[in-house]
Amino acid sequence: MTAQLTPTPETAPVAPAGSSTPSAPTALGTSAAELVARRRKGYSLEGDFYTSREIYDLDVDVVFSKNWIFVAAAAEIPEAGDYVTVDIGKASVVVVRDDDDEITAFHNVCRHRGSRLLEDKGFVGNIVCPYHRWTYALDGSLLHAESQPPGFDKSCFSLHKVHVRNLAGLVFICLAQDAPADFDEVAKIVEPHLRPYQLDKAKVARQIDLPEAGNWKLVMENNRECYHCDGHPELISAFFPIFGYSAEDITPRLQPIWDRYTAAKEALAEKRVAQGTPLCDHQELDTRPVGFQLEHFPLEGESKSFAAGGAALCSKLIGDVKDAAFGDISMHLQPNCWFHFLGDHCIAFSVMPTSPTTSVLRTTWLVNPDAEEGTDYDLESLCATWNATNDQDRTLVTNTQIGCSDPAYVPGPYSMVEDQVEAFVNWYMTRLREHLGLEATA
Amino acid sequence: MTAQLTPTPETAPVAPAGSSTPSAPTALGTSAAELVARRRKGYSLEGDFYTSREIYDLDVDVVFSKNWIFVAAAAEIPEAGDYVTVDIGKASVVVVRDDDDEITAFHNVCRHRGSRLLEDKGFVGNIVCPYHRWTYALDGSLLHAESQPPGFDKSCFSLHKVHVRNLAGLVFICLAQDAPADFDEVAKIVEPHLRPYQLDKAKVARQIDLPEAGNWKLVMENNRECYHCDGHPELISAFFPIFGYSAEDITPRLQPIWDRYTAAKEALAEKRVAQGTPLCDHQELDTRPVGFQLEHFPLEGESKSFAAGGAALCSKLIGDVKDAAFGDISMHLQPNCWFHFLGDHCIAFSVMPTSPTTSVLRTTWLVNPDAEEGTDYDLESLCATWNATNDQDRTLVTNTQIGCSDPAYVPGPYSMVEDQVEAFVNWYMTRLREHLGLEATA
Amino acid sequence: MTAQLTPTPETAPVAPAGSSTPSAPTALGTSAAELVARRRKGYSLEGDFYTSREIYDLDVDVVFSKNWIFVAAAAEIPEAGDYVTVDIGKASVVVVRDDDDEITAFHNVCRHRGSRLLEDKGFVGNIVCPYHRWTYALDGSLLHAESQPPGFDKSCFSLHKVHVRNLAGLVFICLAQDAPADFDEVAKIVEPHLRPYQLDKAKVARQIDLPEAGNWKLVMENNRECYHCDGHPELISAFFPIFGYSAEDITPRLQPIWDRYTAAKEALAEKRVAQGTPLCDHQELDTRPVGFQLEHFPLEGESKSFAAGGAALCSKLIGDVKDAAFGDISMHLQPNCWFHFLGDHCIAFSVMPTSPTTSVLRTTWLVNPDAEEGTDYDLESLCATWNATNDQDRTLVTNTQIGCSDPAYVPGPYSMVEDQVEAFVNWYMTRLREHLGLEATA
Repeated sequence: MTAQLTPTPETAPVAPAGSSTPSAPTALGTSAAELVARRRKGYSLEGDFYTSREIYDLDVDVVFSKNWIFVAAAAEIPEAGDYVTVDIGKASVVVVRDDDDEITAFHNVCRHRGSRLLEDKGFVGNIVCPYHRWTYALDGSLLHAESQPPGFDKSCFSLHKVHVRNLAGLVFICLAQDAPADFDEVAKIVEPHLRPYQLDKAKVARQIDLPEAGNWKLVMENNRECYHCDGHPELISAFFPIFGYSAEDITPRLQPIWDRYTAAKEALAEKRVAQGTPLCDHQELDTRPVGFQLEHFPLEGESKSFAAGGAALCSKLIGDVKDAAFGDISMHLQPNCWFHFLGDHCIAFSVMPTSPTTSVLRTTWLVNPDAEEGTDYDLESLCATWNATNDQDRTLVTNTQIGCSDPAYVPGPYSMVEDQVEAFVNWYMTRLREHLGLEATA
Repeated sequence: MTAQLTPTPETAPVAPAGSSTPSAPTALGTSAAELVARRRKGYSLEGDFYTSREIYDLDVDVVFSKNWIFVAAAAEIPEAGDYVTVDIGKASVVVVRDDDDEITAFHNVCRHRGSRLLEDKGFVGNIVCPYHRWTYALDGSLLHAESQPPGFDKSCFSLHKVHVRNLAGLVFICLAQDAPADFDEVAKIVEPHLRPYQLDKAKVARQIDLPEAGNWKLVMENNRECYHCDGHPELISAFFPIFGYSAEDITPRLQPIWDRYTAAKEALAEKRVAQGTPLCDHQELDTRPVGFQLEHFPLEGESKSFAAGGAALCSKLIGDVKDAAFGDISMHLQPNCWFHFLGDHCIAFSVMPTSPTTSVLRTTWLVNPDAEEGTDYDLESLCATWNATNDQDRTLVTNTQIGCSDPAYVPGPYSMVEDQVEAFVNWYMTRLREHLGLEATA
Repeated sequence: MTAQLTPTPETAPVAPAGSSTPSAPTALGTSAAELVARRRKGYSLEGDFYTSREIYDLDVDVVFSKNWIFVAAAAEIPEAGDYVTVDIGKASVVVVRDDDDEITAFHNVCRHRGSRLLEDKGFVGNIVCPYHRWTYALDGSLLHAESQPPGFDKSCFSLHKVHVRNLAGLVFICLAQDAPADFDEVAKIVEPHLRPYQLDKAKVARQIDLPEAGNWKLVMENNRECYHCDGHPELISAFFPIFGYSAEDITPRLQPIWDRYTAAKEALAEKRVAQGTPLCDHQELDTRPVGFQLEHFPLEGESKSFAAGGAALCSKLIGDVKDAAFGDISMHLQPNCWFHFLGDHCIAFSVMPTSPTTSVLRTTWLVNPDAEEGTDYDLESLCATWNATNDQDRTLVTNTQIGCSDPAYVPGPYSMVEDQVEAFVNWYMTRLREHLGLEATA
């Protein structure tokens, strides 16, 4: 009745509840470095990574402000003057299609007294500050400001620009002065795979922002394994729940699924070859700044899409895909996004941090630009599987956020099928280590 | 019109408003020690004790994580598999009755990636993590975890245990490695007094959690004096409002009440002797780690319970009590609980901190297990006096929290009848002093 | 597409987004001093001034606790025992009319255990603490406290007094030990101008508290310029939108307005002379501790008040004003208030900080004490122009608060017509510089 803490050969790196260690978040500086330095490979992260304000500020300043972040589908801003705004921490960025049909981006802050310029999304001719009517062109240059003294030089007060890339219809920005250079290499690898889907001309069928009561990394870690996929009945009716598994991970319970999967993968390969799509998978999740993974997945049985029964969810196929049963390309990029490319629609997912303990998951469904709601697709059915899945995951994330905040929490070991969680954490720790000037672990 | 601050011979230990002292909370470390060191005996605490995050963290880590805390009536978990969860700061503890009918407790955190395991209260066979289905027995041992590599040793991943005691049907836990050893001494003193009430077999008639807009210590200090009892018309219809008073504290206004009280105390003694109950009072509130006080109180006139008119509130008496007019045993334990034991029902009160400026008061009404609501007792009537009293106290606590946060607040002197407030503060300061390595005051 | 940050000859004093500077608020101490020291004249303040907790604490402790703050119209407490309470940061002050018909003020904190004494506004005979009934006279002296030990000296426990002044019916307090001495000089200058309005005998027609989602300084800066007055259609129907402008600031668009303004100013002067009112304007906004500005303004055309069409809004003129078309005296005092004095009513505005990013704007409309609502004035019409204007400004303040919190925000240059914003900032920086022991800038 009285023995305290099960004795374990595992020396817990975090002091348990009741020790003199305060439950307050870690102070910045040495201790962030210490947390990074003592991270144990193959184990989940310490609780401070999910709760402390200092780590959150590092995440915003290092991970989200120095790396390429997926922010929108190009299809969201099809015409010149169309814009979306994006929040990264306390920064807001306007992503706008300019008069040359190029996508450009700048900070959403007036150069006079700092007022926000634009909200949400919409269309503008010029950008006019709502406070004192300073007026900027779509390229960010200052066109007009009233009552200025002689000598005022408009060219000194353009809006601050932000790096932007359009990768096969997916828009990424980077807030840093020097953006990671390997983005273009990755784009070169990825683009041929995505070409058939022609996302630049797609139509946004729906976009949903789901608030999560968990640190953004818990949302990402949840995405990067299917060890919990028993909890997703809708998803696994068409999706093989062996994402992240290899032959040696397969338990007797999973063996029949694995056998069907390997057979289906061969069948899919033939179809892809027929349409001239590259077949190779890529896995470079923690070996480069623009960490990514691209995998060609078959679906269960005759399934064409993520639906119970496997029917296609949109009767007009996307891009120039010829066969509705075209499998699924699953693409992940670090730090915050993943995608599914199916024969009849594509889905983009991205996670944005909003506080140490909250984040937002944005899901965007893209279809053929000629597909009509009610005729070619039913909107609720199109979104049903992933709405259910996202909601199930949201509950798991909430529980883990609460548990990781408990002073009794100590990191536990990843199972054999959580390698991509480990890869996400490795990529993340490498970014912090570089920023903090720490040596890479041997 | 212009003189600033009434000059007083009392040198105020806190700088008043308008000085250069910021109103921000005290930073931790030296200043917590300084606050403790300069506390003036017989005076209320400085405002930082009720407002600062650092003191709150100390309270959670020192007071609530290293001492015995009342968390439940054993009657809340009568059967094997019944559990309640308890939050102490950010820690959550599962208190469960195991297959041997013993009450046991462990941290409510999965040993894999930290998910919360159980919520609120309920019944389980095994404890299954909702995330990846790691499965634990009721003794906390890990029974199953899927997809582990060869060499994974389940015995290393039992749930972390927590100290627990069942004192005459009242459950206490201690999160510390080494729990205060004198709990068993106190239990030995107290148990004979509580034996007639047989709380282990009682029935929970009601449990109410009342959120308080005040630091937990303000709720406790409010409980530890009856100087404010004029504000409790329901309570003082049966309860002598002389709690904490001795003969020399009695003002002319209170003299008639005091005379009735002393006569009633003698009459009660005879009844208690007849049933073989010990009669002695105990007062060791600040002289030991498990500070406590137990006092035998008569009620006003022929009163049997806390009701207007004095009628019993439950027709079946509790335990093996023979006489409905059995007075009241009032028991206090440091740091966070108090109890009333009456002939017809018992009430347990506990205060849990939820933030520097908020807490929760839990009140639990216990009756004879055979008593039926609607027949033997009316639930609203049973709870009416203390619901009203708690609510009145809640307003006083709110006002004091706001006032203590005012930079103009300076500690004031306790009156002659606030000795138990002083004893509570003494006990509390001793705990902080020990933790901070300060000498006891002479 | 990739160039980062428009190169500018302006060396930005704040690092832009994506640099390694964390977005977290500035830590106190050296950095507050550094922020003050590097402030660039003629430019808006850095973002930390509007977002950081440390600067907010300085603002409360230095600006609002050491200077004279407008807190009420004397007309709000016309009878002995009438009181209002005022919050300044976490301090609360009772402003009460005592038995000698004088206005007095003290801290709203019981000298026993710190309970708040009074809430909002109302009437009392004595001040009785709601907790333990300690009882104070209207002069703050302790009359009674029960159960005190022998030797308890009531005279040591009077309520702490606060400096107070009644300037022509406008009540100011100062929390500091030593209040700025030049208040009486300023009062001597201002009082003759305000005498005709007899505010001491006025009636409060309405008082509205408008919560603002912005730092108090943004609300003040918004008030101190009319560069944004295009956004106030109701206000500029009667008010010349040339507040803060001089002849050289006038753009061609504003020239016709300016010409009407100068003609109207001459016409107004004659009326004022006829009633024996002083005519001179005063501008000492940043040249003394009690910074102020008083300016005699004509209204548009035949306008008598702030109404579309210019009709008077109250048929009984205020004080002993003889002519409804009496123009407007605009008076500003640092740090937090401004006033309009018209022939038919007066309006007092004050801004109180409530957090780093929020504040409250209080607007009080005063009319002739004999004016009856529904007969002499319509309440909605009386308040319509400023309710609309305040609401429009609230949106501008919200946008600026959000934008100033963006790490990409850098201070921009004030236009020629934002001199009073600069004066407000100068006054403010002088207060911080004095407090921090910094040299005045050359």
